[in-house]
Amino acid sequence: MTTAQASGETRPGGRTARTRQAVLAAVFEELGEGGFAALTMEKIAQRSGIHLATLYRRWRGVEGLVCDLLTGLSADVPLPDTGTLPEDLRVLSRAIAVFYRDDRRRSLIEAVVSAAVRDPQAATLLRTFFAERSELYGRLVTRAVERGEVPADTDPEQVMAALGAPFYYRLLIARGAVDPALAESTATAVWAAVRAGAYKKADTADGTHDGR
Amino acid sequence: MTTAQASGETRPGGRTARTRQAVLAAVFEELGEGGFAALTMEKIAQRSGIHLATLYRRWRGVEGLVCDLLTGLSADVPLPDTGTLPEDLRVLSRAIAVFYRDDRRRSLIEAVVSAAVRDPQAATLLRTFFAERSELYGRLVTRAVERGEVPADTDPEQVMAALGAPFYYRLLIARGAVDPALAESTATAVWAAVRAGAYKKADTADGTHDGR
Repeated sequence: MTTAQASGETRPGGRTARTRQAVLAAVFEELGEGGFAALTMEKIAQRSGIHLATLYRRWRGVEGLVCDLLTGLSADVPLPDTGTLPEDLRVLSRAIAVFYRDDRRRSLIEAVVSAAVRDPQAATLLRTFFAERSELYGRLVTRAVERGEVPADTDPEQVMAALGAPFYYRLLIARGAVDPALAESTATAVWAAVRAGAYKKADTADGTHDGR
Repeated sequence: MTTAQASGETRPGGRTARTRQAVLAAVFEELGEGGFAALTMEKIAQRSGIHLATLYRRWRGVEGLVCDLLTGLSADVPLPDTGTLPEDLRVLSRAIAVFYRDDRRRSLIEAVVSAAVRDPQAATLLRTFFAERSELYGRLVTRAVERGEVPADTDPEQVMAALGAPFYYRLLIARGAVDPALAESTATAVWAAVRAGAYKKADTADGTHDGR
């Protein structure tokens, strides 16, 4: 059973859904106040007014909670459709930058990545979550292929990983601010790399370089 | 006092240095067997033969140990000097890929990133470490500027962040294998982006796009 199922998505609008909403809102607030390091099930129970036993039953622990919250918030970055791939990439890049300017969202991704290191179930959730998002946003590339804007063997998944990578590097490794300049340079870089054929699908990408 | 100072770099070759070597080797082995999740000071004491009290006094905890190990291992990725920036980028990209093909090194970076989320001192260590590496490898770009290969306002730090980012995305977010294809696509992408002017220094980069 996935965390999403466990937290009641099968009964939208019902009591289960309201409980989930209250709990995830509490997690988000707690992340904003003390970050992941200070997050405890007890604090979430107190803030949300939901029994501790219910929290443990549905989410197992703080790691399950933050993963579920990530899924809930991801709708805040919509799929652009401007008519050209470079502009779509720029709009998406800016939306990612705005998303992570909020310290609570920053704490959230830190928490999920950190959880994934220690907990195989959190690792699977993280991998699945980003694979799904990558597939969704990959439609930008598919549309560009259909418009004849980029070669048909451009790999949507690689393009989307390239667009996200600089933000996660900034957040998790360089640990600096996600600023508008990063969004601009990332969009410019990815579009240039797409045109240079950097993200061709596997069977052709290798062949280009080493002649296989 | 930094972890590097605390662990005895002031007395190279002496007993302190040998202790550090034994302890870091033990940390590396333990990371290979159980990852960061299973790492304890007790296990490191047992494997290295160094007293637990000594470990706590010098490194404070497992987080101090993994940060110190990261510094020690970073010499495994040498600075290329092939004569052209695209080839230097390719050599460096391949070296990073080889570095992270070892599961122990993968566990190590996971551990440090995870530690940084919970411990401000680890966060500072991580940020400082990557800033220093970025400055070191940035010489590739400085040399290319001197050769007239790329514009003088190309920002070495941004280029190096762009070269590292796809690897850390693959390791920490997509949680997939770091393969040779990633090294090739990253090198191709970064060189294309450099030529497209994606990594210009701050005062000109913003001006290009929004007219400031």
